[in-house]
Amino acid sequence: MIKRTLVKALALSLGVMAGTVAADDLMDRAQGTFEPIPKYPPVIDGNELTQAKVELGKMLFFEPRLSSSHLISCNTCHNVGMGGDDYLPVSIGHGWQKGPRNSPTVFNAVFNAAQFWDGRAADLAEQAKGPVQAGVEMSSTPERVVATLKSMPDYVERFEDAFPGQGDPVSFNNMAVAIEAFEATLITPDSDFDKYLRGNADALNEREKEGLALFMDRGCTACHSGVNLGGQEYYPFGLVTRPGGEILPEGDKGRFAVTATASDEYVFRASPLRNIELTAPYFHSGAVWSLEEAVAVMGTAQLGTELKDNEVDSIVAFLKSLTGTVPEIRYPILPPSTGSTPRPTDMIQ
Amino acid sequence: MIKRTLVKALALSLGVMAGTVAADDLMDRAQGTFEPIPKYPPVIDGNELTQAKVELGKMLFFEPRLSSSHLISCNTCHNVGMGGDDYLPVSIGHGWQKGPRNSPTVFNAVFNAAQFWDGRAADLAEQAKGPVQAGVEMSSTPERVVATLKSMPDYVERFEDAFPGQGDPVSFNNMAVAIEAFEATLITPDSDFDKYLRGNADALNEREKEGLALFMDRGCTACHSGVNLGGQEYYPFGLVTRPGGEILPEGDKGRFAVTATASDEYVFRASPLRNIELTAPYFHSGAVWSLEEAVAVMGTAQLGTELKDNEVDSIVAFLKSLTGTVPEIRYPILPPSTGSTPRPTDMIQ
Repeated sequence: MIKRTLVKALALSLGVMAGTVAADDLMDRAQGTFEPIPKYPPVIDGNELTQAKVELGKMLFFEPRLSSSHLISCNTCHNVGMGGDDYLPVSIGHGWQKGPRNSPTVFNAVFNAAQFWDGRAADLAEQAKGPVQAGVEMSSTPERVVATLKSMPDYVERFEDAFPGQGDPVSFNNMAVAIEAFEATLITPDSDFDKYLRGNADALNEREKEGLALFMDRGCTACHSGVNLGGQEYYPFGLVTRPGGEILPEGDKGRFAVTATASDEYVFRASPLRNIELTAPYFHSGAVWSLEEAVAVMGTAQLGTELKDNEVDSIVAFLKSLTGTVPEIRYPILPPSTGSTPRPTDMIQ
Repeated sequence: MIKRTLVKALALSLGVMAGTVAADDLMDRAQGTFEPIPKYPPVIDGNELTQAKVELGKMLFFEPRLSSSHLISCNTCHNVGMGGDDYLPVSIGHGWQKGPRNSPTVFNAVFNAAQFWDGRAADLAEQAKGPVQAGVEMSSTPERVVATLKSMPDYVERFEDAFPGQGDPVSFNNMAVAIEAFEATLITPDSDFDKYLRGNADALNEREKEGLALFMDRGCTACHSGVNLGGQEYYPFGLVTRPGGEILPEGDKGRFAVTATASDEYVFRASPLRNIELTAPYFHSGAVWSLEEAVAVMGTAQLGTELKDNEVDSIVAFLKSLTGTVPEIRYPILPPSTGSTPRPTDMIQ
């Protein structure tokens, strides 16, 4: 370490060791383009992360009784043991129905500018309300959720502790706020790339650095930059060449469904790439299982470039350096149902 | 505390305080009928609980890729945050099919003489192989499970560590053995009743002691005794009066399906009663949601007794003293699927 620093200092002062200077230049450029995952959860406007709220949010995240069947919880499709999603092309929900899009990871989702593939939720609290009510996901209603939570004294007490001073703290909105608070703690710091961004030039090997350089030089960073390498802006999938219907199903026009603006057809939020090696299959369609294939598709569809195999391999090596330390989570103990807890209904509405 | 001990000593030496003497007699009888949950997991013949094996078993317990859909894990129906079962009348499995019987709790299951409501599995390892293959549960095959586990290097290494010296450690049988090892750690010691059995007369209040006395005097202990207050022997449901078809569906003849012996019609393993307040709804049919109603049904069906409301309440108070300390479990990190991992198939076979 010391040796390397000396060499680096020498190289900088003499300007003769081109390789090392290029590497430093790479780090400078990377630091200007990306940000490391912070070590601690971020501050969320209007949602202070108190222990009572985060713990309640964890219970709710694991609570299958937020679904009308009492089978499906947030963790079913955003599994904290499986990269924060479900390793399925599209999720299976209420009545074994399939959702239309691949489940995005909950890890680091707090750093995204908006939630869902089409960005239709501004934040995690708004997002959390969606699947609970979606007929193909948890198929419940705000009224049913509130009745369920109010039927269990342990939950009532925990909502009072998490939302002190509120007259009627057990609400659908507070459910979502508590889940957001928990989800804000689901961050994965300390990836090799984070160490590199923080100045440790040895944290990436040569192959990974080649991949990083390609990632920046070929223009991937036009959509994938910032702390999550994506998750900030919306772009058309198929900017240069539209992939086939298997990868880009014609029926799903992405953000067009939110904005009803013709230019938003097939526009999606750029996928965040943190822990991407853990979250196959890829794309909103979940149609591609191999990270190599996903990178190659991006090359042709978005950049109009046929990436060479060894370029793909280098980029994939770099992408794997984005895998961080996933949070340790103690399984929460959920209170038993009571006589007034709404009974599970597994009928498809 | 001191005061009470003095009173007790006085009562014992003088023999004049009938109530207290009766209480001591109650403890003696209870100690002769029941056993406390041990503080540490039991020794299992032929399955040493090494850390490597227990940790692997935990991963497999939470592993949805043991199901062909990649959606359902052991924890789906034996949820460690929900009393070790799923709070459903009967479980929902592959293709949203319903199983025929209520999911029994995994907590303390290691103390049962046999597994399943009809005792068709001799131990937890044999049990674990059932749901993985059942078409209405996880709907996989031993071959598919082995191919899945062998496709992930992390699992291969963990099987090697858990089963050292075996030529081919990644096997369907070892999957079950590892799950059994983990499940053996899922015990719930330190209930108030355990403290009472260990000699603390104050651990139960008067109501609970009344319930305990009734539980023994009315004959509940004929089927519900030992460490798990059940789980040891088989008895006909409806010994005196057969309940209606809603509670005892005519199509499910219990152990008859295992032994094909006429006398085993409607015979089931006596339900273990540990943590019973956490495991509604009740009976193999899961038809009864209230513990009070379940106790009353047992009175008429098994004992031919119409228990009075206050007797039911006392017995329920006693039963709630069986709730122990549930184990703390860190959610395991499961390895990502690889190119050779069999893809999820959600079709109903």
